[in-house]
Parts: sequence; structure tokens; C-alpha cells
Amino acid sequence: MNRKDGRAPDELRKVRITLDYIKHAEGSCLIEFGDTKVICTASIEEKVPPFLRGTGQGWITAEYSMLPRATAQRTVREAAKGKLTGRTQEIQRLIGRSLRSAVDLTFLGETTVWIDCDVIQADGGTRTASITGAFVALYRALQKVEKLNAIKSFVAAVSVGIVDGEFLLDLNYEEDSVAEVDMNIVMNDKNEFVEIQGTAEGKAFNRSELNRLLDLGEKGIKELIEIQRKTLGVEE
Amino acid sequence: MNRKDGRAPDELRKVRITLDYIKHAEGSCLIEFGDTKVICTASIEEKVPPFLRGTGQGWITAEYSMLPRATAQRTVREAAKGKLTGRTQEIQRLIGRSLRSAVDLTFLGETTVWIDCDVIQADGGTRTASITGAFVALYRALQKVEKLNAIKSFVAAVSVGIVDGEFLLDLNYEEDSVAEVDMNIVMNDKNEFVEIQGTAEGKAFNRSELNRLLDLGEKGIKELIEIQRKTLGVEE
Amino acid sequence: MNRKDGRAPDELRKVRITLDYIKHAEGSCLIEFGDTKVICTASIEEKVPPFLRGTGQGWITAEYSMLPRATAQRTVREAAKGKLTGRTQEIQRLIGRSLRSAVDLTFLGETTVWIDCDVIQADGGTRTASITGAFVALYRALQKVEKLNAIKSFVAAVSVGIVDGEFLLDLNYEEDSVAEVDMNIVMNDKNEFVEIQGTAEGKAFNRSELNRLLDLGEKGIKELIEIQRKTLGVEE
Amino acid sequence: MNRKDGRAPDELRKVRITLDYIKHAEGSCLIEFGDTKVICTASIEEKVPPFLRGTGQGWITAEYSMLPRATAQRTVREAAKGKLTGRTQEIQRLIGRSLRSAVDLTFLGETTVWIDCDVIQADGGTRTASITGAFVALYRALQKVEKLNAIKSFVAAVSVGIVDGEFLLDLNYEEDSVAEVDMNIVMNDKNEFVEIQGTAEGKAFNRSELNRLLDLGEKGIKELIEIQRKTLGVEE
Amino acid sequence: MNRKDGRAPDELRKVRITLDYIKHAEGSCLIEFGDTKVICTASIEEKVPPFLRGTGQGWITAEYSMLPRATAQRTVREAAKGKLTGRTQEIQRLIGRSLRSAVDLTFLGETTVWIDCDVIQADGGTRTASITGAFVALYRALQKVEKLNAIKSFVAAVSVGIVDGEFLLDLNYEEDSVAEVDMNIVMNDKNEFVEIQGTAEGKAFNRSELNRLLDLGEKGIKELIEIQRKTLGVEE
Amino acid sequence: MNRKDGRAPDELRKVRITLDYIKHAEGSCLIEFGDTKVICTASIEEKVPPFLRGTGQGWITAEYSMLPRATAQRTVREAAKGKLTGRTQEIQRLIGRSLRSAVDLTFLGETTVWIDCDVIQADGGTRTASITGAFVALYRALQKVEKLNAIKSFVAAVSVGIVDGEFLLDLNYEEDSVAEVDMNIVMNDKNEFVEIQGTAEGKAFNRSELNRLLDLGEKGIKELIEIQRKTLGVEE
Repeated sequence: MNRKDGRAPDELRKVRITLDYIKHAEGSCLIEFGDTKVICTASIEEKVPPFLRGTGQGWITAEYSMLPRATAQRTVREAAKGKLTGRTQEIQRLIGRSLRSAVDLTFLGETTVWIDCDVIQADGGTRTASITGAFVALYRALQKVEKLNAIKSFVAAVSVGIVDGEFLLDLNYEEDSVAEVDMNIVMNDKNEFVEIQGTAEGKAFNRSELNRLLDLGEKGIKELIEIQRKTLGVEE
Repeated sequence: MNRKDGRAPDELRKVRITLDYIKHAEGSCLIEFGDTKVICTASIEEKVPPFLRGTGQGWITAEYSMLPRATAQRTVREAAKGKLTGRTQEIQRLIGRSLRSAVDLTFLGETTVWIDCDVIQADGGTRTASITGAFVALYRALQKVEKLNAIKSFVAAVSVGIVDGEFLLDLNYEEDSVAEVDMNIVMNDKNEFVEIQGTAEGKAFNRSELNRLLDLGEKGIKELIEIQRKTLGVEE
Repeated sequence: MNRKDGRAPDELRKVRITLDYIKHAEGSCLIEFGDTKVICTASIEEKVPPFLRGTGQGWITAEYSMLPRATAQRTVREAAKGKLTGRTQEIQRLIGRSLRSAVDLTFLGETTVWIDCDVIQADGGTRTASITGAFVALYRALQKVEKLNAIKSFVAAVSVGIVDGEFLLDLNYEEDSVAEVDMNIVMNDKNEFVEIQGTAEGKAFNRSELNRLLDLGEKGIKELIEIQRKTLGVEE
Repeated sequence: MNRKDGRAPDELRKVRITLDYIKHAEGSCLIEFGDTKVICTASIEEKVPPFLRGTGQGWITAEYSMLPRATAQRTVREAAKGKLTGRTQEIQRLIGRSLRSAVDLTFLGETTVWIDCDVIQADGGTRTASITGAFVALYRALQKVEKLNAIKSFVAAVSVGIVDGEFLLDLNYEEDSVAEVDMNIVMNDKNEFVEIQGTAEGKAFNRSELNRLLDLGEKGIKELIEIQRKTLGVEE
Repeated sequence: MNRKDGRAPDELRKVRITLDYIKHAEGSCLIEFGDTKVICTASIEEKVPPFLRGTGQGWITAEYSMLPRATAQRTVREAAKGKLTGRTQEIQRLIGRSLRSAVDLTFLGETTVWIDCDVIQADGGTRTASITGAFVALYRALQKVEKLNAIKSFVAAVSVGIVDGEFLLDLNYEEDSVAEVDMNIVMNDKNEFVEIQGTAEGKAFNRSELNRLLDLGEKGIKELIEIQRKTLGVEE
Repeated sequence: MNRKDGRAPDELRKVRITLDYIKHAEGSCLIEFGDTKVICTASIEEKVPPFLRGTGQGWITAEYSMLPRATAQRTVREAAKGKLTGRTQEIQRLIGRSLRSAVDLTFLGETTVWIDCDVIQADGGTRTASITGAFVALYRALQKVEKLNAIKSFVAAVSVGIVDGEFLLDLNYEEDSVAEVDMNIVMNDKNEFVEIQGTAEGKAFNRSELNRLLDLGEKGIKELIEIQRKTLGVEE
């Protein structure tokens, strides 16, 4: 059975990565998962947070935001509200952890890489697109400052879920909003898990259902890492 | 191989639940996972958030906090800083989702249950102790207002992780701080998953390692639900 | 004498407007003044602020922001700081007033148009590009909800200034940062002023210098309004 | 005439102090004035606020909070509101001043003692219980770091008031909420006043009424200091 | 022994009240206690806080602030810091309680009186000058809206203290900053106490010392109420 | 045609400057433009913001506020709201820029001058009165610290506008609230512009209307600078 947008259940949306999208940033791209579009930048700062000073080790931290009209209904700016929502904080912590898992921080020296993921149009999967695009921006920035040796692995992320009993890869907004189970998977290029976050929205899931979701995720991640490689011109 | 505190790798810490710990609350308990101690209360409010008004459906929401000296080093109060940390928001969202999965909200009527989890002493696993204790407080409160029919299942949570290559159940703070993989698992009494949040802190993990962790988690959850039942005097 | 980027003193940078850039918004565009790029959206909300309730009159309000890495050095997010800078508030108030001057608010009915201007890349003139693009987004949104009769005039904005004694139109960042006098001019298609904001950064200016700056501004505005018209397919 | 809970007008509620209640803190106790229960901790930090740096003198500062469901109706968390109420600030300033009066700060060296009073169940008199318990925690912490020589005197606090014309010691919540006059008294073990805060809630009071209230307070303080001494094992 | 400024120990500073100082306010005055100068206004609003709606009863609330350069060293604005200090909140709560004690709120109808006390120059005693001046502004405002029947009594406030062993009335800043005991007394025109707030800054005080301070306070209050009466043209 | 208050169209309101109004400040005045009254102080601080440290150059920064009852309707305190309005920030930035234009900052040494403008009564033109009064306070403060050589020129500000087709100087609140065009002009004593901020409130304006407004402004500024000189005893 195919989906509303014609995809097979195990098919990613069309993924496009426009490299070097923002001229000022050390690394940047515009990543599109279908109608979800995120500007990812990586900025190099030659200092580290207090807890790392004097250790010779670097840090990677991430921020995430959505433009107010990235969504079908305009959302109020967090800057206007004066605080970040829990959702935003959760996502930016996830992006940061995922990228740090791909890097040997001791090779950075006392350098912070600031990752910014700004969603300009949202249609589901903004956090997985952000991680996938942020890795590209990070790679590009480290290339520029000649610290590619710090990269331990490629990292990408994708969502999977159960919708109406169907097991689907890379949910768009419409699918996501009715999913019974929703899972975000972050993996590296060695087919290992970096993060798994699965939530039973409507009904709990058993071990065999979990395994089918993980299979779908693995397939999607492999394809995404392939696209990252092509964009960056890096052979396996 | 046994652990520093003498437990077997698949052994929970000593769990104690003191029911009706706070006299004002509709439901409450003090839950202890070893030296981790959390006061959980459930408060009934006869109104719902705006998005539910007029639907006849209820809501469950959770807040989480730690006393400043619950930790080895005193932590600054979030009230003094004027904002919640990302960690706090992440945890309270997790507690809320976990409990809502156990309840048929349409049976609540237009009622909000406020769950408060306040950690008075921390030694690892504060979020899993919070979920496990919060369910007990919630059950007690619904019992008091005669809405036990809204309960669909029992829910409990436990952490698992890989420490020095060992697969461990219910990590204390010392173990947690050096874990290579850290996973929080929320399950119901049908052996189904409600939430899985696994993070590779130091090294990524493969599918077979994931499965060993899930096995450990299942075992722990079964024991915790058994303790919940005994505390509440509910037979299976 | 020509400028570093080869322009004549009275020459605009290359202006490009990509209409309907964001699919969710009632009206939107990406506007580029050279390397300055701003996403402008207009969102229709069927209610008005308290002070207008029951008057039958509508409102237009604007918000402005920059992505952290829109600038050469990464700037801290206002959402992270928890408050808007004075500069941001000044600009969003300017955008709002400028657009309201172009619209008969009584023709809107009790409708608010939210204008969002998000700078994704900055190279000087972000506020003038924002006003010029926001008018296009506003026009588009009113067209969509069939309220074009509320439009009284076209409105556009441009900067002028004195740099090293030279009178220049549409300053880029490098020029702006060393300008002795900096002026933002907002005008309508009847060659009338809507806003004039002139500041002596380094040295005060006399009446005849003011007049030369205003002449430059008039020229630039005429060209910008011509581009707006072409983009929207509206004949004079 | 006896009170609802059977006490004589000049009788304290049952006072219990559980020493060393929190394992991480240098000093701690759980203090109970009847159903009012407060966790008090004293934390030692080896630095002082800027205004004391280089003076060789220490500081004592206090924070106070209530768990949301310490009260009959759940109260909103100050961390969620993002600011402290005036009541909270007033109480924590009072606790801090009271404890500083009992200590010779020059004997502390450049050390700050952070006092945390967290009310887990409230039934009137939370600020007086906090002061009385905080002194015990402070004493214990100074004992641990071998600075007991800094203690100049014991300090305790109690409330007195006029309810329905009756002069009462140690008001519980029900009494407090209908008191015409409400007074908090902080005294040391030399029968001297450290703080007096008296408020005419319903009707103003004259000098002779004031004197009767002070007599009651003196009696209560003596008994409280006796309990502090026993708890700490300190003879007079 | 006389004081630095030549006053006897039991002598007030020169008190001046300029009635109707601010033209917009329903009631206002500039009150001066020597070099301490406070603008007090009373503003009438025809609505009450939520907890009083429908009760037919009114409310009086107070706000207090200091201009940044009211003090010898410029203090940072609370508006710039984004929050009120504990001191400010303590003072505005005290002013509010003091004035409410003088008024029968049921005679106000559902009206709120907003009291604003803004210190334009500070030299000690700003809170007592504020209360004394605020009562005048309040009286004036109730006169204007023809609700003088709500006034139950006059209210004024003064500070007393022990400085170098001397018992002093109405301390100026220099005296206050070295006082061993500092007490603020609020009384009505029946010689009754409305508030007593006494603090041992340096050494605790006994009952007989307290009584000498209260005697001084009574004397000062009588003189202040006499000045209030003359200013308002109200005979005893 | 004369105005409601009897002034000719090109006539200032009665301007009064009371020098040295606040005893603590290095420089201060109370400035009155008719019923608009502003306390202006200049405070000297012997340090500079981070971006100037080590440059040997000074800084001038300004803050602006209104007492709550400076206005016909009481306005909520910004300190109570916890943030500055856009209007306030815009005004304080304008005051700061205007004063810095009059001073050679390199002659200040690493000194910051804090300008505070607090409106105690408002009747239109609060920002122009603030700038005009702030210059006097600044002059006075620099005189006190013997840095008058840093003053490059006198600076004053005035508003002009079009009301009912009439061109008016120095609008009061009633005129300002119905003005079609509203312009604030800041000029120095060489008849040069420092700032021009013109806004079409109701209808846009052409070049010849602009010129008539600028003529009016020039006339007003000359008179204001004359008054500043007399107040300070400085001959031209």
C-alpha cells in the first residue's frame, strides 16, 4: 500500500542538500526532506565553556528554532515569549548529543562548534532533518579549519512510526500527527545506534513491533548517509 | 561480577514506597530507589487546558524538580534562575507522556491531574523513580475521586546501561556517570513499551547490545509493577 | 568614483524577489538586496488586539529577527537571552508603522496581519529590505483573502548615507559601518515620505547635505517600487 | 479555653527534629511543627559574594520554597512562573538575617553557608519552623567543618497572635488565617530579640496587647531552644 | 547629646508635604523627610483583582521604586534587570498592608486604589516617608471620588533605632547604616500599632530596650499625623 | 491662528530648568517643557563597557523611564512587567546617540557617563525634553570632574508636526495625539542635524512640507540652546 504522497512505506521523501548556503558561516547547508526545509550552520569559536577550560578539549553545542510561519498556523516566537519551549530544548539537546557522538572532541582543541538549525518550512521530521543537515555543516566547518581528523563517523537521523497499523519510514506532518508510535533514530555509518527515542502516542508497542521499526530506520539512515557523502564528495 | 553496592548486574536497588506521604494531596507517596528519594503527589483540578475545553476529556501534566541539596554539589534553584533547564523540561514531558499512556483520558471528564515529582535526595535514576512513584500517586488520587475506571494499565520505569562492558539494571549515580550507554525504559503491565530513550554516551551500540538492555529492562519493570501492586493492594 | 563592489554611488544592489517562498503563509517572499537575504511572510489572523475589538478595524504588526549566523560573527539568539534587543524592537516598530501607512485598516475588518521578517543572511540594509519585501508579502496575503481594496499605496524603503564624503545609495555592511551619516527612508508610490530616520554617526549634517541624501533616496525608492510591481504583476 | 487541636493557648505543637536527614549536605534536618514539615540543609561553599572578597569574612544566605502540594490547594511553582513571589523573598531574607545574628562571620573565613528551607507540608508557621530548623542544620555543618567557634548563640523562632480575642502561641494554618494580629518573633538563648515582625491583620493593637504577645513568644522560644540543644546533644 | 545634623535624639527631620504634586493623579504629594524625597500618587481604577470580583469590596495595592540616582551610588534599574529585588517587594507589601489597615475596604466598592511611591532622593527612611506620604495621597484621592467615609483612621510611619548606644528617632542614611538595632513602626491616630518590624543588625535587644524604642516611635508618629492633618486641612 | 494653550504655531512652551536638582548626582536638573517634567541626572563611573576596555576612550549611555502616574492613565511599571517596552528602548537609544554626538569620547578617558531621564509628569515631548535636559546634566557632571574639554557642541531637541494642516512647534500631548505628521529633531549649536526622526502618522508628507517642519525645528532648537546656556552660565 502506498502513502498519500505516493511513497512506498519504506521510502524516504526527496532529500536535497544545498551546500555552503550561508556565506558567513564556516560550514552551512540548506537541507530539505520533502517540504521540510532547515538551514544548518556550523560556527567555530576559539573558546570553550567553563567546564572545559584548560582541558585542551573542544565542545559542540546546538540550537534549534522554527520561523514563526514555518508551520501551518503561525507560532509565537520564543524570543517574544522570552523563553524556550520544552520541545525546543529537547531537540537542541538531542542534536548536540548526536553530533558529539561523531567527533573526537580532544582533536578539536579548545574550540566550540556552534550548530544552528533554523527550520524555515516544516512538514514533519524537522529534528531528523536538522541532525542530518547539521552533520554536513559540521563536516564542512571542520574541513575549513583543517580538523577533519576529529570526525569519527558520519551520523544521520530519520523518523519511523506506525500509522493505522502500517510501518512507515520518514513521516511527514500529516502522518506524524496521527501516528500510534513515533520513533526517532540516530545512527552512524557503522550501523550502530547513537540515539533511540520511541514514544507510544496512542498504543504501546511490543518487542517485535520495535524490531520492525528499527529495520526501517536502518534502511533510511543508510540512504541518508549516502546522500551526505555525495554532497560532501567523500567516498566510503 | 557484583557491583560496588553488592548488587547483581540484573538487580534493582531496594525500592520502598510510603503511601499517602503528604496529607493535603489527593494522592501521594515517597518513593525510594536506594538513596534516590522522590516525593510524588497527584492533585486534582476541576478544569482542563484551553485546547481541551468542551471536549469532555481530561488531562494529566507533570512537573519535576530537585531540591538544591538533593545532589552532591548544591545546584542553583530554577526559581532563582528564573527558568527551567532543558533537562527538567525533558523529564517532566517524559513523566507526563508516560502517565497519559496508562489512562483513558475520556474517563476523567474535564479534570486535570497535576503530577509533582520533587527529588529530595538524588543518587541516579530520579526520572525512573519519579515515573514509578507518580503512577502510584495518580492511582491513589483517581481512587479518591472514584475514577479508577480511567486506568488502562500499570506503568513503571527503570534505567539500564552498559558500564565498563557490563550490562546493568537500575544504575546509581556513580554507575550512571561513567556509563557508555544509558537507556530509560517505560513499560506497562502487558510487557509493552511506552517509551524508550537510549543514548550512546561514549560509544554507539548495535542491535544485539540493544536487545540485552531491553531484556534487563523488562525484568526490572516486572518487579517494580509488582511492588506498585503490593503498595496499592491491587491484585493482578 | 565607483564603489568596492563596482556600483555607481546612486546605484542599488541587485534586487531579487522570490514570490510565494513559504508554502504555509498567506503571503510570502524571499527578498535579496545583494547579499542581504530576508524571508518575509504575511499571516492572516481573524482577530485583533484588545484596543481594536468591536471597532470593525484591522491591524498590521511586524516582527523581525536575524538567524544567529546571518552575520559575520555569530550573534546570540534573542530567544536564548530571553529578551529582544532595543535594535530589534526599533526595527519591528518601524516595519509595522511603514506598512500600516500603506493600508486603510478599516477595509481589513477585524483582522490582524502578522508580518515576519527573518534575515537569513545580512550584509547591510536588513531593515530596508525587510520593509520592501514585507510589502510584497502583505500585498500577496491581501490578494489571497480578497482585501486588496485595503491597499492605499505601494511602500518601499532604502538606506542612504555619507561615506568618506561620498553620498551613497543602498549601503552594504562595509559601507554602513564607516558611514558618517546614515539615513533610512521609507516612501510611497506618490513620492511622499512615510518615515525618515537620519543619524549623524560621526559628524552632524547640514540642510544641503540632507537634501542630497533625500534626492538619492527618492531615486532608489522609485526603482524598488518598480521591482515590486513587476514581481506582483501590477501595472502602475 | 483549649484550641481545636486540644492545645493550651501557650502550648507549642509537637516539635520533632530528624537530624542528618539528607546525606549529601554538610548539615541537615527535617523539622516538624505539628503538620508543618520543612527540610533544612546547610551547604558549605569555599567562596564569598563579591562584596566580601578579600575581607577574610564569611557569609550566610538563605533560600526558601514550598513544594507545590505542600498546601491545601496546589500552588504554582515559582520556577514555572520564572520569578520569586514577594512572600518568598521576604521569608528568605528573614531567615538569612536571623542566622547571621547568631554567628560571628569573621570566624567563618571566606566561606558561604547556603541555607535551604524547603517546606514539604505546610500547616502554618513555615517561616518559624524554617528558622528553628535552619539553625540546627547550620550548627551541624559548622561542626563538620570544625568552625563551631563561630556560633555566638542559639536562635529559634515562633509565631504568636490574637485569634478571636485569645492570645495564642505557635498558630497553625487555621488559626493563622483568622488571626487579628500575627507576629513572628526570633530570639536567641540570652532571651534577646533578633527580629520582631508584627502585623495587625484585622485590628490594630496597643502596647499592653503587644506585651502579652511577647511574653508568649519568650516562653515558646525557650522550649524550642531546649529541643534544639537536645537534638544536637549540646548542654546549656 | 545632639546628632551630626544638630537634631535632638527624639526629633524628627524637617517634614514637608507638597499636596497635589502630580496633575494627572487623583491624589498625590511630594513628601520630604529631610533630604529623603518621595513622590506619592494614588490612582483610582474601577475594577478589582480576581479574588475580589463580585464581592462589592475594594482593594489597595502599592508599588515602590527608587530612581537610579536617588542614592549616593547609582543603582541599577529594576526594569533593566527585569525583576524586583526582595527589598522592593518587602517595602511595597508593607506599604499596602499599612494603608489597608486604615480603610474599610467594603466602603470602596469594587475599586482598586494603586499607590505609587517613587523615591527621587534617598537619605534613610524611604519606607516610612512613603507610608506617611501615601496616606496623604490616598486620602486626597478618596476625597476626590467622594469616598472619605472609607477612611477609618490616619496612619503614619517612622523609624527608630539604637546607634552607638543612643536611642534615636527618624534615622537618616548615615545613622541607619551604623545602627545596631533598626525598627520601623507604623501606627494609627489611636496610638495603636499597625506594623512593627524590628531587626537586630549588630546586637540583639532586650525588652526594656524595645520599650524605649517604642516610646520614641509613638512620639514621632503623633507629630507626623499632626502634619498630615494640617496638610489635608482635617481637624482632629 | 493660535493654539488651545494660546501659543503661536512657532512658539515653544514655557521651558524651565532647575539645575542641581538631585544632591547625589554629579550633574542633574529638573527640566520642564510646560507640563512635561523630567528629572535628568548624569552619573560618572570610572569604568567602560567591555568593548572599550583598554582603548582609553569613554562612553555615554542613557536610560529613560516614566513614573506610572506621569500619564493621564496609570501605566504599568516596566520593572513589574520585567521588561522594557520597545518605545522605552527606542527613546533611550536616541538620547544616548544624541549626547555622544556632542562629546569627544576620547577626552573622557575610560569613564562612563550614565544618563538617567525619569519623567515625573508627561504632557508630550518627553523625549525632546529629556535630551535637552540630559545635555545640561551631562555638562554639569563633566564640569565637576573637570572634563569640559570633551564637549564639542551644545545639543538640544524639539518636536514639530502637522496638526489639522497647521505646522506646529513643540507639540503637547493633545496636539501630538492627533498629529498627521510627527517629527523629532536633534540639532547642535552649529545649526546642524544630529538626528531626524519623522513619521507620517496619518498621511505621508512631501519635500516642501518636510522643509517647513525643519524650519520650525531650527527655530525651536536655537531658543532651547539659548536657555541651556543661560542655565549653565556659558556664553556663546
